[in-house]
Amino acid sequence: MADIRSRIASRADLPGARLRSVRAQAQAMQVSVSTVVEAYERLAAEGVIVSRPGSGFYVAGPVAPLALSRIGPKIDREVDPLWISRQSLENEADVLKPGCGWLPSDWLYEEGMRRALRSQARADTLELTDYATPLGHPELRRFLSRRLMGNGIEAPPEQIMLTDSGTQAIDLICRYLLQPGDTVLVDDPCYFNFHALLKAHRVKAVGVPYTPAGPDVEAFGAALQEHAPRLYITNSGLHNPTGAVLSPVTAHRILKLADSSDLVIVEDDIFADLEVNPAPRLAAFDGLSRVIQIGSFSKTISASVRCGYIAAQADRIDSLADLKLATSFSGSRLAADLVLRALTDSGYRKHMEAVRLRLAEQMAKTITRLATIGIKPWLVPQAGMFLWCRLPHGADAAGVARACLEEKVVLAPGNAFSQSLSARDFVRFNVAQSGDDRIFKVLARALQRRAGIVSV
Amino acid sequence: MADIRSRIASRADLPGARLRSVRAQAQAMQVSVSTVVEAYERLAAEGVIVSRPGSGFYVAGPVAPLALSRIGPKIDREVDPLWISRQSLENEADVLKPGCGWLPSDWLYEEGMRRALRSQARADTLELTDYATPLGHPELRRFLSRRLMGNGIEAPPEQIMLTDSGTQAIDLICRYLLQPGDTVLVDDPCYFNFHALLKAHRVKAVGVPYTPAGPDVEAFGAALQEHAPRLYITNSGLHNPTGAVLSPVTAHRILKLADSSDLVIVEDDIFADLEVNPAPRLAAFDGLSRVIQIGSFSKTISASVRCGYIAAQADRIDSLADLKLATSFSGSRLAADLVLRALTDSGYRKHMEAVRLRLAEQMAKTITRLATIGIKPWLVPQAGMFLWCRLPHGADAAGVARACLEEKVVLAPGNAFSQSLSARDFVRFNVAQSGDDRIFKVLARALQRRAGIVSV
Repeated sequence: MADIRSRIASRADLPGARLRSVRAQAQAMQVSVSTVVEAYERLAAEGVIVSRPGSGFYVAGPVAPLALSRIGPKIDREVDPLWISRQSLENEADVLKPGCGWLPSDWLYEEGMRRALRSQARADTLELTDYATPLGHPELRRFLSRRLMGNGIEAPPEQIMLTDSGTQAIDLICRYLLQPGDTVLVDDPCYFNFHALLKAHRVKAVGVPYTPAGPDVEAFGAALQEHAPRLYITNSGLHNPTGAVLSPVTAHRILKLADSSDLVIVEDDIFADLEVNPAPRLAAFDGLSRVIQIGSFSKTISASVRCGYIAAQADRIDSLADLKLATSFSGSRLAADLVLRALTDSGYRKHMEAVRLRLAEQMAKTITRLATIGIKPWLVPQAGMFLWCRLPHGADAAGVARACLEEKVVLAPGNAFSQSLSARDFVRFNVAQSGDDRIFKVLARALQRRAGIVSV
Repeated sequence: MADIRSRIASRADLPGARLRSVRAQAQAMQVSVSTVVEAYERLAAEGVIVSRPGSGFYVAGPVAPLALSRIGPKIDREVDPLWISRQSLENEADVLKPGCGWLPSDWLYEEGMRRALRSQARADTLELTDYATPLGHPELRRFLSRRLMGNGIEAPPEQIMLTDSGTQAIDLICRYLLQPGDTVLVDDPCYFNFHALLKAHRVKAVGVPYTPAGPDVEAFGAALQEHAPRLYITNSGLHNPTGAVLSPVTAHRILKLADSSDLVIVEDDIFADLEVNPAPRLAAFDGLSRVIQIGSFSKTISASVRCGYIAAQADRIDSLADLKLATSFSGSRLAADLVLRALTDSGYRKHMEAVRLRLAEQMAKTITRLATIGIKPWLVPQAGMFLWCRLPHGADAAGVARACLEEKVVLAPGNAFSQSLSARDFVRFNVAQSGDDRIFKVLARALQRRAGIVSV
């Protein structure tokens, strides 16, 4: 008792901290288990510690609030996913953002949005002022059902639920399936916000190395065995950040490995409309049995209107609808209606063709420009906006990013994407955000300076 | 070991279920603590159970997903908050919804929405296609800051964060402050979706009886002592479902009681614009120290455009912004812009005056109509849309609701709002949704039938 009291008094154990389990404490202090039980009970009776039924004993007092920035090991600000996202989202006019994860605003479907808003101004009363139904806009769900069918995924409209974003879609699935302490597989590297999202769920993320044909099958199998993960979150179409695409054989092997487990797979399909030659989808191979597919329209129509979706088994959709209702009440009927108007506008197909062409041109140009400063892509992607590149001479990407930021260029250094922090000398470039020559000048200078530091 | 094995084999303990604590198990089986420790360790080594560091022992295998409908005691479908919300959100044309919690769509600001959409169609590119900044639309936050100042709440724009809805605002605060197993105080009765939201956070809700002047101060103090809650969630302006308003003396006493605790208070202010004479606000008395205020525009402008806000201490806003980013990435820039256009439209003030007048008329009419079938309000509200009424002869509101639903009238029975299930013979009426005579005919028939059953 004296020992625990002094730890609390010295703030070695802060309010809300969990005490060692009875057994661990007994071992640590070389006393019997029943001695510890008695000490804990007396301290609880005094109000110094509290017993949480089913969980253990805690130092009395308030629990520190969930500050994501304080969870996990301290990392460089430049590889902190939240910090990078906030930098990218702040609208400072003179900042260049090759590290940003989306298209420049003038590449998006502005004309379609204007037309959709004008026609929406004449919509009926319910569309303009009423809540959405629990699953969301029936017509948009019918449209998405047909679109998924075109990709070989059979999802009737009642197996589709609209959400406010792709991120909210994954968040709801995590709420549905995960408990604090569970393990989730992610690609290494993967979209960095998955790391922040999983932190918010207080679960453990385990990375599986990503190869040019999808996740490393052997490592995937080993991770299944070792960690018994509940969930695997991936992008299949155009992988973020590598630009790789899943091969049919890898897709098949991953699903086969998963067969002997309880793994659920979330397939994030937000880059589908940027593909030139559609890659295989896990959801198509699996038939939405263990795979849940999600998507959104922020990367192609507009990021200003928030709308995403989840396609899954019927019973999962039902529970997810309850969770959406409890935690955000309703999605936006207006947003879904706007997205539907834009998607079904006769100009949308032409718009997307132009975007894909422009991306291909920018991809070629960026590869050439990067080559002039000694940077080579890990893989030349078939399509999309991302180039995953290794810096020359093992330069530290976080340090380079720090130097570039001083000159108002925001980079996305590799370790922000890597659960194992094994991408120290990688950087993700968004070719659509890399049109300005200043980016390459600033980057070259930063690399030279780093090289100088290294050689000193 | 045999006992635990047999409980698992018979599925008395399902995969994912937590085993009794070592101590509880030792007591239950009348064996020593160390015997239980050894048995648990051996079973864990065999893989029959798993140890979660810091949490206890669990039956191995997948954890059942979070189905809100299966948490807590089984309750009547008619008093299940999720079920009532889903009924209210389904758009069936011929269903009457006096139990619904919002204004009919043609009472909302349709003309303002049309004007806002037309002018938005001419907005600049960034507004139409780019992400929102982390805290959301700066101009709307400046506007809200001035509006809050008018209510005596000092919140500079950087202490305001926009959200997708009032519900998302409370959800983010719960994520920030709560851990599974924490206790939260709610009013009894309170807005029923608070119950569903708190279930989703796996926390314990404790009800404090609501009086015509606010929460019962003595019961509030006792609950603080007994449960050491982390959070208290309330509406101050026009209380849902009672229509009561907080008196200055109650507000002062509640804050004084909270002074000696670590309680955080969420004040949900979504009905502010329906008030005729503004009631005191906890946030104004407290100066946003322990109080966090949230609001939205679904009840006054449109429920189809989703936009809410949180006003709080600066460090809380910063952590909440990280959480919003991790779990939904960005709010809708378009939605915030639309709300700002509607709020600053010259017609908005006139629209709200008309709504308040219409509500007062409907309130008077509904009270008269209810009196003819023997139903009296618990309190005649000063304003707003809700009437909290006791049914005659102790009729069971859930049963009456079931009977009315068969005739396509959706009621909101009292126990959906009551944590202690002590409002069995209460019903909440929305006067704005009670204009149709059929409601009262159907209700009278249902009451007569119930009375008949009771007298038999």
